[in-house]
Amino acid sequence: MLKGIPAILSPELMKILMEMGHGDEIVLADGNFPSASLARRLIRSDGHNIPELLEAILTFFPLDTYVEKPVALMQVVPGDPHSPLIWEQYRSIINKHAGQGTQFEMVDRFEFYGRAKSAYAIVATSESALYGNIILKKGVIK
Amino acid sequence: MLKGIPAILSPELMKILMEMGHGDEIVLADGNFPSASLARRLIRSDGHNIPELLEAILTFFPLDTYVEKPVALMQVVPGDPHSPLIWEQYRSIINKHAGQGTQFEMVDRFEFYGRAKSAYAIVATSESALYGNIILKKGVIK
Amino acid sequence: MLKGIPAILSPELMKILMEMGHGDEIVLADGNFPSASLARRLIRSDGHNIPELLEAILTFFPLDTYVEKPVALMQVVPGDPHSPLIWEQYRSIINKHAGQGTQFEMVDRFEFYGRAKSAYAIVATSESALYGNIILKKGVIK
Amino acid sequence: MLKGIPAILSPELMKILMEMGHGDEIVLADGNFPSASLARRLIRSDGHNIPELLEAILTFFPLDTYVEKPVALMQVVPGDPHSPLIWEQYRSIINKHAGQGTQFEMVDRFEFYGRAKSAYAIVATSESALYGNIILKKGVIK
Amino acid sequence: MLKGIPAILSPELMKILMEMGHGDEIVLADGNFPSASLARRLIRSDGHNIPELLEAILTFFPLDTYVEKPVALMQVVPGDPHSPLIWEQYRSIINKHAGQGTQFEMVDRFEFYGRAKSAYAIVATSESALYGNIILKKGVIK
Amino acid sequence: MLKGIPAILSPELMKILMEMGHGDEIVLADGNFPSASLARRLIRSDGHNIPELLEAILTFFPLDTYVEKPVALMQVVPGDPHSPLIWEQYRSIINKHAGQGTQFEMVDRFEFYGRAKSAYAIVATSESALYGNIILKKGVIK
Amino acid sequence: MLKGIPAILSPELMKILMEMGHGDEIVLADGNFPSASLARRLIRSDGHNIPELLEAILTFFPLDTYVEKPVALMQVVPGDPHSPLIWEQYRSIINKHAGQGTQFEMVDRFEFYGRAKSAYAIVATSESALYGNIILKKGVIK
Amino acid sequence: MLKGIPAILSPELMKILMEMGHGDEIVLADGNFPSASLARRLIRSDGHNIPELLEAILTFFPLDTYVEKPVALMQVVPGDPHSPLIWEQYRSIINKHAGQGTQFEMVDRFEFYGRAKSAYAIVATSESALYGNIILKKGVIK
Amino acid sequence: MLKGIPAILSPELMKILMEMGHGDEIVLADGNFPSASLARRLIRSDGHNIPELLEAILTFFPLDTYVEKPVALMQVVPGDPHSPLIWEQYRSIINKHAGQGTQFEMVDRFEFYGRAKSAYAIVATSESALYGNIILKKGVIK
Amino acid sequence: MLKGIPAILSPELMKILMEMGHGDEIVLADGNFPSASLARRLIRSDGHNIPELLEAILTFFPLDTYVEKPVALMQVVPGDPHSPLIWEQYRSIINKHAGQGTQFEMVDRFEFYGRAKSAYAIVATSESALYGNIILKKGVIK
Repeated sequence: MLKGIPAILSPELMKILMEMGHGDEIVLADGNFPSASLARRLIRSDGHNIPELLEAILTFFPLDTYVEKPVALMQVVPGDPHSPLIWEQYRSIINKHAGQGTQFEMVDRFEFYGRAKSAYAIVATSESALYGNIILKKGVIK
Repeated sequence: MLKGIPAILSPELMKILMEMGHGDEIVLADGNFPSASLARRLIRSDGHNIPELLEAILTFFPLDTYVEKPVALMQVVPGDPHSPLIWEQYRSIINKHAGQGTQFEMVDRFEFYGRAKSAYAIVATSESALYGNIILKKGVIK
Repeated sequence: MLKGIPAILSPELMKILMEMGHGDEIVLADGNFPSASLARRLIRSDGHNIPELLEAILTFFPLDTYVEKPVALMQVVPGDPHSPLIWEQYRSIINKHAGQGTQFEMVDRFEFYGRAKSAYAIVATSESALYGNIILKKGVIK
Repeated sequence: MLKGIPAILSPELMKILMEMGHGDEIVLADGNFPSASLARRLIRSDGHNIPELLEAILTFFPLDTYVEKPVALMQVVPGDPHSPLIWEQYRSIINKHAGQGTQFEMVDRFEFYGRAKSAYAIVATSESALYGNIILKKGVIK
Repeated sequence: MLKGIPAILSPELMKILMEMGHGDEIVLADGNFPSASLARRLIRSDGHNIPELLEAILTFFPLDTYVEKPVALMQVVPGDPHSPLIWEQYRSIINKHAGQGTQFEMVDRFEFYGRAKSAYAIVATSESALYGNIILKKGVIK
Repeated sequence: MLKGIPAILSPELMKILMEMGHGDEIVLADGNFPSASLARRLIRSDGHNIPELLEAILTFFPLDTYVEKPVALMQVVPGDPHSPLIWEQYRSIINKHAGQGTQFEMVDRFEFYGRAKSAYAIVATSESALYGNIILKKGVIK
Repeated sequence: MLKGIPAILSPELMKILMEMGHGDEIVLADGNFPSASLARRLIRSDGHNIPELLEAILTFFPLDTYVEKPVALMQVVPGDPHSPLIWEQYRSIINKHAGQGTQFEMVDRFEFYGRAKSAYAIVATSESALYGNIILKKGVIK
Repeated sequence: MLKGIPAILSPELMKILMEMGHGDEIVLADGNFPSASLARRLIRSDGHNIPELLEAILTFFPLDTYVEKPVALMQVVPGDPHSPLIWEQYRSIINKHAGQGTQFEMVDRFEFYGRAKSAYAIVATSESALYGNIILKKGVIK
Repeated sequence: MLKGIPAILSPELMKILMEMGHGDEIVLADGNFPSASLARRLIRSDGHNIPELLEAILTFFPLDTYVEKPVALMQVVPGDPHSPLIWEQYRSIINKHAGQGTQFEMVDRFEFYGRAKSAYAIVATSESALYGNIILKKGVIK
Repeated sequence: MLKGIPAILSPELMKILMEMGHGDEIVLADGNFPSASLARRLIRSDGHNIPELLEAILTFFPLDTYVEKPVALMQVVPGDPHSPLIWEQYRSIINKHAGQGTQFEMVDRFEFYGRAKSAYAIVATSESALYGNIILKKGVIK
């Protein structure tokens, strides 16, 4: 533990966040996501939900302002009326850290898997909300 | 994730709990404990407190009934009037899983370090309560 | 060993089952299957048959309810009148844990090898029944 | 699997048995023994009892005829009237393979741990009989 | 060394033979074969010829009865009148263990290299007979 | 790079600082210190001096308030009138982060080597000031 | 540290520079470059800017005189009037070590990533100037 | 060091030469060759020239007599009148060990790189003669 | 395989013989020796007897002429009238390579184990002669 | 290869020389020295003599001026009239780089082995001169 670093960020996760560069992506995956199967680098964060982790990460992690949509979510299956409430939580946390205008890309399930496979890292949480997976693209520190 | 396994137990921790045998010890260490320095095997559980972890572990983990005191705590420094409230939580969780009579051994700080060094594993939590470290000695499955 | 965990599940197998996510597959392979040759991750379970292992695994492992057929078997060679009795055992164990309607996919031998190669893990048993290999696709914990 | 090799012997265990030399010891440990903690080399044999394993091992493994007692058991705690039935099974299997005269050494629990620690390998079974642990000292192939 | 296991079979080779499954291939390569260059798994058997090794292996190793030709040899270069005597030795050893009808596939040198590259293992012997390389396809234990 | 983390802190160093617990020590070593020879964990910080690194580290790293002297320096050889100016820099940086009263322990060269050997990590800088080595003992995050 | 070797060159970097041969490339990457994600071999040089590193490297490292342009920069995005000042620093350092005529290749961002991916090594600095990334192609020692 | 083995042959190089089989290639590379970048297996022989190494290697290493040209050199760039003197040294050493008729293949620079990449090993020398790189194809021991 | 190197010497064994220096010892162990248990470096030579190996090794390996007895054998147990015939073979091979005067040290079994434990390497053969183990101390190449 | 770095210094050796700190020792060992057996870190420099290596190393490597005798040699055995000529070469190279007054410590053979065992590294050369081994203690870069 260190002063000013939230306890939810493990030493290994902090190291990974620091190593990432402009354009690299990190996936915060829910408890059912095939994280261990797809990840180039796997960080386990068992027992945690995504919002508290997202909050801690965005304190340090800049989103990419060179692309239109630096955040990606897994699209609701066409025809499914479900509207994931957790997305509102994400939006509010992201607005707080990265400004109001941040746009979200909606990605189909299998394309999402492809993105996860080439992402720099996947954080395996125990988030139980449906459609809770989220990808963050890293921006630039000036 | 699996049916009936609490999400706070990581795959690695579950594996370690299963590998341990009669008399092996595991340390649930607070956020300031020198876990990485002392551990033969280190499990990180950043962002969690000990009571919720203890509850999940004891669902599966039998305490040693062949010794008088299968649980050890780090003794309050002599002269310090502090009475750790978290111990009551521990007692109540342990009573629930292992029966009323379970006794606690009080161990001096440096002896506690020695026990941690030879323990089978240390789980590094972010528990912030003072004197929160606890050692569990594994019993027998019949 | 732990309370409530069948002894046939090794620590490593339990860890693998926990790590798997939605859509990941595990193969329970018979004693003659080229498990070591094909596996991304290999778990040995020498000396055991598949039914007792399947029973233990399904106590914890949810089958995928998002696909039509979450279980796959290796098809009897066309023209061969053999009707594998062990499939009835599998069906009864699966019905018990996953409900009556669970459907089985029949896969040709070489396609089965392909599936095994990209599965998350293969468990090498000593099952001696013909056509005893079985693939389970993991579902979601809610 | 191979012709004439019992399925309960894993490839790794067979390799270990072959590597051992005159005077090396192997422990067949019950399900509660701290095998993973003590072993120089650990072979898991989850879900199996010791007698079937002992039978398979002694088909290939010669006991040391240069010492008086090439087999060691963990002594019943003084005062405990318990007389382990499983020892009779062991005796009968050993007589069958190594001759009637084979003698057993009775070793106190903590001395037994010391022997296990310096043994060539420990096989972790799920044997549930009390006092089921057994040490075999390898003899000579002529 | 173990009772009933020929000394020429190293612990590592025995382990490999046990791990192989139905359809997996093993190459017994002569002293000039580029074994180390091609092998997925390499077993060295320096100083030995192939016949004595083949004899020992076939004591345990079943040939595949589901294919027409479970044994492959490297074809004599077209136009070369050489008729490898060692093949007669192989035939007699194989007939002894697998029955009279076992057929041999003749494979061109570069196709043989391809087979060797995807074989489960290559055993590098010091066999000096021309055209001495041989591939065995593993069958089924019933 | 991350928001609010000085660029001089490498991902590996940040991870190490986070892993350390109460009482663990870290050595900031000058360019001539035998760091690679003594370190349990070595972090290279070539081309940097110690003051800028110390400043960055103490932004996050609490000093131990449970010991009298949480900082140690390498004692000037008796008889040498040299008074290291860099110590004043250290004192001013430490006062800024840990308060005025922080006391420094003076340690003889060979005892310093012993401390370095059992420290959690050594950071190898290129500091060229004489007597520039410094040990920090980690405190507690409340 | 050694006589005549600038302290900013870490032992690992020096080794890498020595190992490189004619035509191999090294990338000096700025603080936001996705170095860890792309590198075949990664050297961290946190806290440093590129010019001081370039100066130290070129003292030992010959540029390739067999190609027209042995140095590559990341092209300013078309339409962007920005004219990177740091390029003048690079030019002056390179002129000093490799002669006036050395030409620079301008490479588009994604082609630059491709070059970085197949480069022998990437040095991750904390350079903050825009368009500060630079690739050096190694020449010949005569 | 051993009796009859030239000191210039390192233990690792001798091992590699022994492991190679019929048709495998080894590259003796000059000091500027990108050996570390291309090699599947790299042997360093810093400070040595190629002729003395070639002499030592050919004492043990048979050239391939089944191909027309078992030795390959890097072709002089078309138009360059340079005629590498070192080739005469090579020819004389090779004639001495492999007979007068041995022919040399002339390979273009980039094709040479391709051959080096798939060679069994590359020996990185400090040879400074232009066009000094040489590839040897291993023959058969009868 | 190489010209002039006996096929019984594996690449790994040749490498080990070359690495050894003045005073280092190598053990040629019989098939029942606990080689894998004691060896710092283990070379397997399954299926071979010691005399043929000794012959091949001594072609290259100088015995230590600075000690009185550069060869050690395992002493016959006091009282046992057995006179190992294989020693005569050893004596004749050693006389041939190292001269008539070479003396043998007789070492008690447990002291022999101690010597084997600190030897540079142990070669595990399948020698079946009693008292066949032999230690060679390396001499100097001039 | 790099400008100004002698080709005899391998990348690995240069890295080791840079990593060493004040008081660390390096051994330049002759061809018969048990280098591989004793070394914490081993650098092979087969085919080279010590003087040319010593010359290259001392161009960069400062000797320790804080001890009386920063260089150690292996003492001639008492009674042996041999006076190693190579020592004069060493003296002249050392005088050239470190000044006239540098003194040599004479160390008995077994004490020399002890020093080698705890040295930072040993360089295994093929030096054939008697008593050619030499230890250098690293000094300080100011």
